Amino acid sequence: MMENHIPACSFVILGATGDLAARKLMPALFELHLMGALGPKTRIVGVSRQELSNEVFRERMEEALKEHSPKSFDEARWQELAPRLAFVQGNYDDPATYRALSGVLSRFDEEGAGGNRVFYLATPPSVFSAIVGGLQAAGLNGSKGWTRVVIEKPFGHDLKSAQRLNGLLNSAFDEEQVYRIDHYLGKETAQNIAVLRFANALFEPNWNSHYIDHVQITVAESMGIEDRASFYEEAGVLRDIIQNHVLQLATLVATEAPARYDARSVRDEKVKVLRAMRCARPEDTVKGQYAASGGMKGYLEEDGVHPRSRQGTYLAVEFSVENWRWAGVPFYVRSGKRLAKKASEIVLGFKTPPHVPFGQTVKPNALVLRLQPNEGISLRFNAKVPGGGLRIEQTSLDFTYDRGFSRANPDAYETLLLDVMRGDATLFMRADEIEAQWEMVAPLLDAWEEMTLLPYAAGSWGPKEADSFLAQAGRAWQLPG
Amino acid sequence: MMENHIPACSFVILGATGDLAARKLMPALFELHLMGALGPKTRIVGVSRQELSNEVFRERMEEALKEHSPKSFDEARWQELAPRLAFVQGNYDDPATYRALSGVLSRFDEEGAGGNRVFYLATPPSVFSAIVGGLQAAGLNGSKGWTRVVIEKPFGHDLKSAQRLNGLLNSAFDEEQVYRIDHYLGKETAQNIAVLRFANALFEPNWNSHYIDHVQITVAESMGIEDRASFYEEAGVLRDIIQNHVLQLATLVATEAPARYDARSVRDEKVKVLRAMRCARPEDTVKGQYAASGGMKGYLEEDGVHPRSRQGTYLAVEFSVENWRWAGVPFYVRSGKRLAKKASEIVLGFKTPPHVPFGQTVKPNALVLRLQPNEGISLRFNAKVPGGGLRIEQTSLDFTYDRGFSRANPDAYETLLLDVMRGDATLFMRADEIEAQWEMVAPLLDAWEEMTLLPYAAGSWGPKEADSFLAQAGRAWQLPG
Repeated sequence: MMENHIPACSFVILGATGDLAARKLMPALFELHLMGALGPKTRIVGVSRQELSNEVFRERMEEALKEHSPKSFDEARWQELAPRLAFVQGNYDDPATYRALSGVLSRFDEEGAGGNRVFYLATPPSVFSAIVGGLQAAGLNGSKGWTRVVIEKPFGHDLKSAQRLNGLLNSAFDEEQVYRIDHYLGKETAQNIAVLRFANALFEPNWNSHYIDHVQITVAESMGIEDRASFYEEAGVLRDIIQNHVLQLATLVATEAPARYDARSVRDEKVKVLRAMRCARPEDTVKGQYAASGGMKGYLEEDGVHPRSRQGTYLAVEFSVENWRWAGVPFYVRSGKRLAKKASEIVLGFKTPPHVPFGQTVKPNALVLRLQPNEGISLRFNAKVPGGGLRIEQTSLDFTYDRGFSRANPDAYETLLLDVMRGDATLFMRADEIEAQWEMVAPLLDAWEEMTLLPYAAGSWGPKEADSFLAQAGRAWQLPG
Repeated sequence: MMENHIPACSFVILGATGDLAARKLMPALFELHLMGALGPKTRIVGVSRQELSNEVFRERMEEALKEHSPKSFDEARWQELAPRLAFVQGNYDDPATYRALSGVLSRFDEEGAGGNRVFYLATPPSVFSAIVGGLQAAGLNGSKGWTRVVIEKPFGHDLKSAQRLNGLLNSAFDEEQVYRIDHYLGKETAQNIAVLRFANALFEPNWNSHYIDHVQITVAESMGIEDRASFYEEAGVLRDIIQNHVLQLATLVATEAPARYDARSVRDEKVKVLRAMRCARPEDTVKGQYAASGGMKGYLEEDGVHPRSRQGTYLAVEFSVENWRWAGVPFYVRSGKRLAKKASEIVLGFKTPPHVPFGQTVKPNALVLRLQPNEGISLRFNAKVPGGGLRIEQTSLDFTYDRGFSRANPDAYETLLLDVMRGDATLFMRADEIEAQWEMVAPLLDAWEEMTLLPYAAGSWGPKEADSFLAQAGRAWQLPG
């Protein structure tokens, strides 16, 4: 069992004046401070092209906390943390930036950070190369303590570019120093999948093709693309959600039991199962694009979107896992923007009982893992309806985190930043894992432009073809609850 | 699926002025009337030695409803039912009683009851023989419609007496006409055991010795023997609870899947598994008797109890089920009076996972079927505690009838009387089933007098020896929740 105690370090945010730093990183670091996980010698260093003094940077971060984490903000506790923040100004392609940073870090090392350093690349991918080169040239890729580098998706935009990015990272850092974040893996419900499967004797014997009919994964967003048109026009739903978040969830469901729950064993198993996954043919997918409805703009009307863009904002796809455990069990996954509600959930649909002695048909069991909202687990089962006669209806055994545990679910970034500082890479993606994901979706990427594009009304559950897609196989999407 | 509609009949209560009629039968019949299950031609006939007019009998039954079922009582609806009640006075050993009864029934037949008759023996067993003989002599063991006879436990007090009682019943009635009531089988949670097992694909594959470590059944009463000393001095906990209710519950848990859920198939399977059950040696049981505590009398101080009585008011016993499904899985059952709370529940304790990769020990899963209070199901499983690190704790997936279904659980008697009138004997015990139960407990009955008697404090969970009994095997009783 790991403890919350972590060694002192310098936590460097490159891109410190950006959106991610304000919305996620600073609030997570402040929460860790509140719970006593950050020691008094730990320092937070912001780096950005903007010209700011230490004082102004601290004021900016205070504003960010008040805006994005108002419930947690506490003036007195902030006054403890604020003096531990420092700022370094510079361009990412200027060696002087890294020399200045190096000087600040050396001072913090002497004051107690002990040479332990995190470099968090909260910048656009376009400057990754400059940063990695700059850190290496300044000798910041190693230290007398430990040095770790954290990067955010997108990890490339296809297999080749991902390989190049991994090559770049591995030219300066050992793979053990690299922490690739997919925040979905930091969600409690995602982490709990392994515990559910491997710390309980009841589920695992049924967790295979003998008992499971199919698996469904839904990652539905109610929002449109907001102000991210330039990113989204490049990425689409396949690169934005399916290739990473959805494949990660599928992997957690499908993986074999690791011998030990550590970074190597867990990621070995994930890579193994990713390599066993095969996409259905591109013609067996449903690609959609939201159209104006109920006062909401269509994708083509969004600012910055090409008026004849064929980018997909919805995708439903079937894939298989070609190994002994999963042979013959389809995995149906779907994701989209402007869907009826924001919901992420995994459904394991069980087979119908081989023989029902009650002279009536019954619905098959389903185990529903809800990532959001209302995080929890529901096991749909059949029970007798109270009263005379024997009438069977489906009901459920339910667990929700808020009823089951007194402690609130932390934000995924809190969990993940703590893991980085603690040196636990289990919830981060290894180079070979990223590449296996791109390899898995390569047939879809190749066909992406040519795939039929089906319009769906903003606020609906996507193109109706996605329903007939499952109905053909005698199955149906479960409405996220 | 069976409907609530039932044919008209004459429902005869022998012992109509007794406690059971007032507390259970009349309230159940009135509920059935309220829900429209009793047709307008159905008649209720009370028989008793007491001299009552029809009017006074109706008044008595109205009082009984107001006392025992105040929430359901409805004056207008009672005025519909009251005229359909009639009374016949007579001694059970007097042929005139049955001639009078026959006359009343013939009249009701002509008025629409169509020759359908239920004879409910709500009398002490001492008059069963006289009643069965009287009915037969008057030709009331058959009719132009259907005739059914319902009897309450005790069904004998050992194998021999049970065989004699079955012989008596079968001398006058076909076995198909005989309905032996154990009201535990009418409880929704008991009925739901078969549905849980055989209408869900998820549980049955784990429902055997490969996955289940042991089974626990607790039937705990908080009350003492009340005013039933003369009965209890004869019966004790072994005859009162273990031999019937507890064995029935064990049977529902242990039975193989019937091909059809009908009276013959279900009871064939129950008899089969009962015959596979073997009691532990009498020296491996814990027999107790409650002693005065917390202002509560001890058993020996109760009115009507012999001051040196060695009767057991508590019994914990282990038995095995010697078949492929259950070999090596101990069934631990316990029941007692004056225990800490009133609770009936079944616990299936699963084995611990073969390998836990998280570097910590975990509790085994348990499936808890609560018969009372708070009827429902809990599946205890291990989950990750929210927050940093990976700490595992046991929590549960929960189902309760009151949240799962809008309809309230009916009283067991409502269900069972409806089944009698509808001709469904699935929830009633067949002659061979009763005899198999007595055969199963015979070794304990033989040794009962000589078994060590351990005192326990009234209001406790029984003799502490019952805990060490399980602790020796590395197990523990689960506290009913």
